[in-house]
Amino acid sequence: MDIRKQAEKAEKFRQLHHGPRMLLLPNAWDVASARILEETGFPAVATSSAGVAASLGYPDGQRISRTELLGMVERIGRAVRIPVTADLEAGYGKTPEDMAELVKEVVAAGAVGLNFEDVTGDDESSHVELTLQVKKIRTLRDVMPIGEAATRFERTVERLRAYREAGADCLFAPGVSDKDAIRNLVKALAAPLNILVSPGCPLLVELEQIGVARVSAGSAVMRAAMGAVQRVAKDWMALGTYDSLFQGAVPYPELQRMMGRPLS
Amino acid sequence: MDIRKQAEKAEKFRQLHHGPRMLLLPNAWDVASARILEETGFPAVATSSAGVAASLGYPDGQRISRTELLGMVERIGRAVRIPVTADLEAGYGKTPEDMAELVKEVVAAGAVGLNFEDVTGDDESSHVELTLQVKKIRTLRDVMPIGEAATRFERTVERLRAYREAGADCLFAPGVSDKDAIRNLVKALAAPLNILVSPGCPLLVELEQIGVARVSAGSAVMRAAMGAVQRVAKDWMALGTYDSLFQGAVPYPELQRMMGRPLS
Repeated sequence: MDIRKQAEKAEKFRQLHHGPRMLLLPNAWDVASARILEETGFPAVATSSAGVAASLGYPDGQRISRTELLGMVERIGRAVRIPVTADLEAGYGKTPEDMAELVKEVVAAGAVGLNFEDVTGDDESSHVELTLQVKKIRTLRDVMPIGEAATRFERTVERLRAYREAGADCLFAPGVSDKDAIRNLVKALAAPLNILVSPGCPLLVELEQIGVARVSAGSAVMRAAMGAVQRVAKDWMALGTYDSLFQGAVPYPELQRMMGRPLS
Repeated sequence: MDIRKQAEKAEKFRQLHHGPRMLLLPNAWDVASARILEETGFPAVATSSAGVAASLGYPDGQRISRTELLGMVERIGRAVRIPVTADLEAGYGKTPEDMAELVKEVVAAGAVGLNFEDVTGDDESSHVELTLQVKKIRTLRDVMPIGEAATRFERTVERLRAYREAGADCLFAPGVSDKDAIRNLVKALAAPLNILVSPGCPLLVELEQIGVARVSAGSAVMRAAMGAVQRVAKDWMALGTYDSLFQGAVPYPELQRMMGRPLS
């Protein structure tokens, strides 16, 4: 991609965090899912590292190689006109130098945003050391925290403020689904907050009302799609009807049109 | 994969075309969908070349490179214990020598079966010349025909018989969905017949009753999954509920267990 065009896209993507509407990012994990999101009218697309990993044969938690993960980001980036932001597991590295290298690769893959976790995925309560994560962010942007139940709110605010000061454009608090807790986070942070939706989360319209800047789905869209596969599989095993196969499926000519669509 | 183990799998897969039950192959297109099919209890898994292509960014019709297509077949082959059969567009080649090379690559990818079309996809009525397709099959196995409406049945039988005589283990007639036409094909061919299900097709239990050996879904399972993505996307655009996102979705811990599962 032309580097100037990519910079314009990056600026457009940043502005989407400060616009009148909440930024909706139901995450894609392959080219077809990304094109569906683009054609439905979303202004940007986020990838799900767990979704990409499962599609290519790995569990979540940085088991997929950086090369394979960015390979799919690049495929998606080539296939859509809207900005692409990459979900990058725990960032594939321990040093700011690793992060600088990562950013180069993300830019080369055509993405204009990225986020990475401050947990490794092996143990939910074990965070990357705060000063290290801050150092990482100083080299780039965007984050995601959780914490022990008792002091979760205070620790989350502390971590997120540090990440914001280090330069993160948008802050993740993926474990939070309580409406009051989310409202309090929005107030305490005074910075764009990304909510990762989960069952029991306030409706999108409510999240927008209380000032959430951006909402994403993690691997949930991919898992919804795999739920459809499970229903088809169970129907077939029972020699049942084709309802789950054909009701609401994207018709073949529609898939062909969508995938054959020229970009410009 | 151990070549002896692979040969045993190939024989097991061949026998599944002659067993008491019809062989059900709702096609997978990535590792997660293949694992769902395996865990639901299917004895083998077929890939969908249109599904793999769309996932990686291409329309159907041999636009995806052989390397990319077989790369996904290999990922799937590594991830499941059951036999994998590869859908290979129009076979990536015009000569028997090309086919011999293709078979080598398919075997190296860990698959034990393959099918390829005798149409290129650009024009539904233009078939590969019969003698050429027969020559191709002599080097390997499995096919798929269509024809002009008026003489479709006779031409289909003619082509399929020729492919069978050339050594195809299983014959495809993807345009056929009429129950009587399918029954007549089964009788006329006296060889394992694969029906590609479409809306209006007889139920699976009926296909089994009239002697169909094997049923597959082409890209339909993938398109059903993409239909789920469309529903989520439309709900989000309308700031609607999360019903389409969470109802029937594979839970995150279940996806993690499934993808992290050791093979042996």
